[in-house]
Amino acid sequence: MKVIKTIAAMKVWSDACHTKGESISFVPTMGNLHSGHLSLVDTAMTLADKVVVSIYVNPTQFAANEDLDKYPRTEAQDLQLLESKNVDVVFMPASGEMYPHNINGNKSIEYIDVPELAQQLEGRARPDHFRGVATIVKKLFDCVLPDHAVFGEKDFQQLLIVKNMVAVLGLNVIIHGEKIIRDEDGLAKSSRNQFLTTALRQKAPILHQALISARKEILSGNVNYAVIESQFIDFINNNGFGVDYFTIRDAVTLGLPTVHNRVILVAATLGSTRLLDNLRVDSTK
Amino acid sequence: MKVIKTIAAMKVWSDACHTKGESISFVPTMGNLHSGHLSLVDTAMTLADKVVVSIYVNPTQFAANEDLDKYPRTEAQDLQLLESKNVDVVFMPASGEMYPHNINGNKSIEYIDVPELAQQLEGRARPDHFRGVATIVKKLFDCVLPDHAVFGEKDFQQLLIVKNMVAVLGLNVIIHGEKIIRDEDGLAKSSRNQFLTTALRQKAPILHQALISARKEILSGNVNYAVIESQFIDFINNNGFGVDYFTIRDAVTLGLPTVHNRVILVAATLGSTRLLDNLRVDSTK
Repeated sequence: MKVIKTIAAMKVWSDACHTKGESISFVPTMGNLHSGHLSLVDTAMTLADKVVVSIYVNPTQFAANEDLDKYPRTEAQDLQLLESKNVDVVFMPASGEMYPHNINGNKSIEYIDVPELAQQLEGRARPDHFRGVATIVKKLFDCVLPDHAVFGEKDFQQLLIVKNMVAVLGLNVIIHGEKIIRDEDGLAKSSRNQFLTTALRQKAPILHQALISARKEILSGNVNYAVIESQFIDFINNNGFGVDYFTIRDAVTLGLPTVHNRVILVAATLGSTRLLDNLRVDSTK
Repeated sequence: MKVIKTIAAMKVWSDACHTKGESISFVPTMGNLHSGHLSLVDTAMTLADKVVVSIYVNPTQFAANEDLDKYPRTEAQDLQLLESKNVDVVFMPASGEMYPHNINGNKSIEYIDVPELAQQLEGRARPDHFRGVATIVKKLFDCVLPDHAVFGEKDFQQLLIVKNMVAVLGLNVIIHGEKIIRDEDGLAKSSRNQFLTTALRQKAPILHQALISARKEILSGNVNYAVIESQFIDFINNNGFGVDYFTIRDAVTLGLPTVHNRVILVAATLGSTRLLDNLRVDSTK
């Protein structure tokens, strides 16, 4: 496994692959890898000749009040895990590589602008978050030159924004969204789960249980979405969470739910940890 | 967990559920349950209030040369597994319940006829197989009255035939196809795997490897499907299998492959065991 730390070297490697007729699939991460990430890598393996994983904690998707410096760094362990998966390249650029300008002062950084899709839900809680995500994903694509890129559906809105960016900019990469990986008790895998105390960890699966109950309710023919939403917001709040949103949307536009392609999205804070989860209503995959 | 053995009692139970406003999801099986089946049960749990699993080795889907009597029966173990999954009802009808007429003499049995879809691939190897499958699925639906039914994508053609039947007959049940569950080395879970010797079991993952390699080849832009097919038929045969088919098709019609929804289907005999597998080309789910 090759570890590449500069954009120049990354591009040379990718160009060489394409010249040899080899295809590349790509999994962008912020490190601190768990089995959710590794499942994305497994998928990437089945899509192309070579697999590149990036590890980069992207500063532009963190707000000033979100503690970028406290984001867990577990580099040695991450590299070991990726080696065991037979990944071809780990791309670990330094921050100066990805953002050669002054970030904190916001001087002359060009951002990829994001559509209305990005203003709601997570975008309301984290106003510049998706602009930062779209920007780094585009920058990473320009280095890695992937034919395929694999993202988790855990960050459902992020996946839609990346797909939208690829469509609007006409990028030559296929985006694959992968099913959420869960613990035995249903909690979606996330780097944030480690911040839960044991007591809160035991409560956390309530989010998934609420999603499943709401799905059953909708599938049984109840289309009083507002009533269902408020019922489950109460239920989750009564279990000690602070719900940010619990909402039934169209799974492509995030607009009003349509009958054949609905998704339920939830964000709620437990202790000081903000948890995300979602469940497709009309598909079990 | 309730075990129900007659059609009459099954209908009474299902009617009572619907009267109470409870929805039912259904997993039909032939028993000899493995983790693939259990994953279908897990999905069923998330779709409706109650879950029914049927165990019934359906005689009409076996040909005279296919040894119905040798189909593995592991009833006690199956019931234990389903109990541990908190299934509500196991429906285990006697053969006389499902087919009150003389089967062997084929006297006055009414079959659900199946479309052209059923004549090719598995239908060519097993001419009356899908007629038997469609017939028993319809009969079971009439007993269980499910709102949802969950099938594995392992039997890809079967899933399409069931979906087709539901559409044509206008049945009030939603069919869910679930991703193939695989062993660590990629072999698709199947009741038939237990018939492989240790040496053959080690060779068996070659089928999945061939599917992945063919997918990469197609995704890299090669649309010479006939060339790809014959290349992989040779590869699999050279590894000691007898390939029945290895074919790239449209994932809805099983006709000529379309660019956005392709599936690769393979059937091959290893020793005396006929193995099936398939892989979606344009979706990783």
